[in-house]
Amino acid sequence: MTVNINRDKCVGCGLCVNDCPAHILALEEDKAVQKSKGCIFCGHCVAVCPVQAVSLPALNRAPNKELAAEALPDNVADLVYRLMCERRSIRQFNGAPVPETVMERLMEVARLSPSAGNRQPLRYILVEEHLAALREGAMEALKAFVQQPEEHPYRHFFKVMLAEYEAGRDPLFWQAPQLLLLVRPKDRDVNDAPIAAGRIELLAHAEGYGACFIGFITAILAENAPLRELVGLKPDEVAQCALILGEPAVRYHREVARRPLRLTRL
Amino acid sequence: MTVNINRDKCVGCGLCVNDCPAHILALEEDKAVQKSKGCIFCGHCVAVCPVQAVSLPALNRAPNKELAAEALPDNVADLVYRLMCERRSIRQFNGAPVPETVMERLMEVARLSPSAGNRQPLRYILVEEHLAALREGAMEALKAFVQQPEEHPYRHFFKVMLAEYEAGRDPLFWQAPQLLLLVRPKDRDVNDAPIAAGRIELLAHAEGYGACFIGFITAILAENAPLRELVGLKPDEVAQCALILGEPAVRYHREVARRPLRLTRL
Repeated sequence: MTVNINRDKCVGCGLCVNDCPAHILALEEDKAVQKSKGCIFCGHCVAVCPVQAVSLPALNRAPNKELAAEALPDNVADLVYRLMCERRSIRQFNGAPVPETVMERLMEVARLSPSAGNRQPLRYILVEEHLAALREGAMEALKAFVQQPEEHPYRHFFKVMLAEYEAGRDPLFWQAPQLLLLVRPKDRDVNDAPIAAGRIELLAHAEGYGACFIGFITAILAENAPLRELVGLKPDEVAQCALILGEPAVRYHREVARRPLRLTRL
Repeated sequence: MTVNINRDKCVGCGLCVNDCPAHILALEEDKAVQKSKGCIFCGHCVAVCPVQAVSLPALNRAPNKELAAEALPDNVADLVYRLMCERRSIRQFNGAPVPETVMERLMEVARLSPSAGNRQPLRYILVEEHLAALREGAMEALKAFVQQPEEHPYRHFFKVMLAEYEAGRDPLFWQAPQLLLLVRPKDRDVNDAPIAAGRIELLAHAEGYGACFIGFITAILAENAPLRELVGLKPDEVAQCALILGEPAVRYHREVARRPLRLTRL
């Protein structure tokens, strides 16, 4: 059985039975039991049990932690709202990386992100030592691309990037000390990586660090075999999201400007 | 010119020049000026200016708000970390919807989300009145699908869903009072919608409400013409993310269980 229920501990409250989205649990003789296959590994049965009677052995390597006893403060939503409104893409860094203790927290919230069907397809590549080599390879690839005769909608932008690079600046990673790649198998859901990346980016901001999505490097890594090899991407993998990370050297006074909301109610 | 700089206000500090990722600004006679085309509408020049001298007329309909003067509390990262670790997919609701004031905040953090190239392709459909019709149509479509002879990896799961539905329960929207669809043109970046949805989901949790990604309805809306019409999807649009929303009727004691982190350092 997938769901392990300790009959001695089970108090027969039925909370796990009611909460199981796969409807595979039932009460028998006032004890919860698994009645059929089809577990989706959401772990809700484990988390909802008031007496710690339920476990999922398949997930045992990383068991659920108990929630903190104290309630979150009343203003927690106001703080999260403010953070989400205030965060901006950071492209000026002072050279200091996100320290190890903070990086561990960023990776932990990524690990615990919502995942389509709880399949958890993501792995992460943190590029630090090899960042200069990746930058150089990407800019060389861009140079070769721009020298081709075909027109491209971003041709002007690419030329600006190359001019900046040749002037000794870094228009790709913006002198950030760290690049984090979020990698999934090509055939898996496209929603997992950006959800996890959004969490990393928001928590980094809360911790006082800056981040910026770099779509350009994901586009290059989709096609450039030597750079795929450099970062260790397997043929069936796609680096869907990339975030530069580090301590910011810029401070903003205003929220991001966006178009008005487009909301339809039905 | 795209970037409007008020010469009387400009103090020539050069912060906007340094921060422009498109490198289109420069200092001339101690004043910032736009030197070339290529604005990517990030709005950083507007936000970094210490004297409110910069504006982007193209974004004027929703100008940047000034950030709050008071600093965020020292423990804000701890609170965000806890929220991200504690949040779970909610599939039991008490019938109360997310109220209007909270819904406005959810939509505001979605609107201000990071957007690939600042293109902001998303629109939103909040389904309340038509939710029962959408459920019924989706379950009818599932019934027809299961009656076909072909095997399907989720066939068993679909049959369980149908049995639940026929027993008067709601295995699709879980009796949630609201469904929010995040819609993009098919040819736009896949990262915007899940980033925005992840923010909505997290802030909803902070506000005391529950949410759950419903990938199943997005799969049906990708193919089912009558249901696409019901929710008003245009032929070139895809409903990439769907979240059920409402007041939760369940409480969890433990974090979600996930596989160990897979992190490579280079």
